[in-house]
Amino acid sequence: MTKTEREPFRDFLPGFRWEGVDRLAYKAEGSAPFKAITRQVLFSDPALACELRYFEIDAGGHSTLERHDHVHAVMVARGSGHCLVGNEVRTVKTFDLVSVPPGTWHQFRATRGEALGFICMVNAGRDRPQLPNEDEVHALRADPRITAFLDDRPS
Amino acid sequence: MTKTEREPFRDFLPGFRWEGVDRLAYKAEGSAPFKAITRQVLFSDPALACELRYFEIDAGGHSTLERHDHVHAVMVARGSGHCLVGNEVRTVKTFDLVSVPPGTWHQFRATRGEALGFICMVNAGRDRPQLPNEDEVHALRADPRITAFLDDRPS
Repeated sequence: MTKTEREPFRDFLPGFRWEGVDRLAYKAEGSAPFKAITRQVLFSDPALACELRYFEIDAGGHSTLERHDHVHAVMVARGSGHCLVGNEVRTVKTFDLVSVPPGTWHQFRATRGEALGFICMVNAGRDRPQLPNEDEVHALRADPRITAFLDDRPS
Repeated sequence: MTKTEREPFRDFLPGFRWEGVDRLAYKAEGSAPFKAITRQVLFSDPALACELRYFEIDAGGHSTLERHDHVHAVMVARGSGHCLVGNEVRTVKTFDLVSVPPGTWHQFRATRGEALGFICMVNAGRDRPQLPNEDEVHALRADPRITAFLDDRPS
């Protein structure tokens, strides 16, 4: 019998998997740009007002560059990489915290030759992400540090 | 200037600390039984319907044996120990998941000669914990495995 979240104890398994937790597509293929990233839903209990998900990006991959009204509360759980929040690009490593405010462009990239895994807490009820249009990408790329990040050569 | 949760990036620091995060008392001293445990609030944003806290128990310490209507979504982040949820006692180790359902007795104990650290997601709005009365402790201790756990000699 497959374990579910209703079981009190679910073991951590090799390869950053958990008992009774499926490894899912990050998003529907073609719905948005992303590369080499998966999603595992660790907690999604109707009694909880938030969900806790684990995302993992293979070396060289990235999440979608997007923004939305809801906020993200992130803790890196595996490896390291780079992250964009607003106009700021930073190296992030295991157990670092990232807060993504409302309406703020953000992206995670596994830029350091290793997988980047992170847990992300979000409100269970939340709005859909928006993608940047051409003008918005152009505005972001005006900052050489953001261009370097988006082109996978962060300084 | 001290970093706060409004900063997008907060570094993980030696000793399981984080930039701009205070290490707090677990609870008010004398309010309930507990031993050698601290609390750090990682995310408590009004825009989030949940909070994410990090608790750490020194070797030999324990959280309060308690229950409440709200649920806990827990991921171990450091070391290992034992955990009681309902009638079940289990070893837990880094990255294992623990779900505490409503109205369920639970306790974490750092039984394995090392610190036990875990993150815990809870609804921002939640009820206060209840302590067991004498009869309830007696009922729990009817199970030899629970007695061994409460007496710090888990099997």
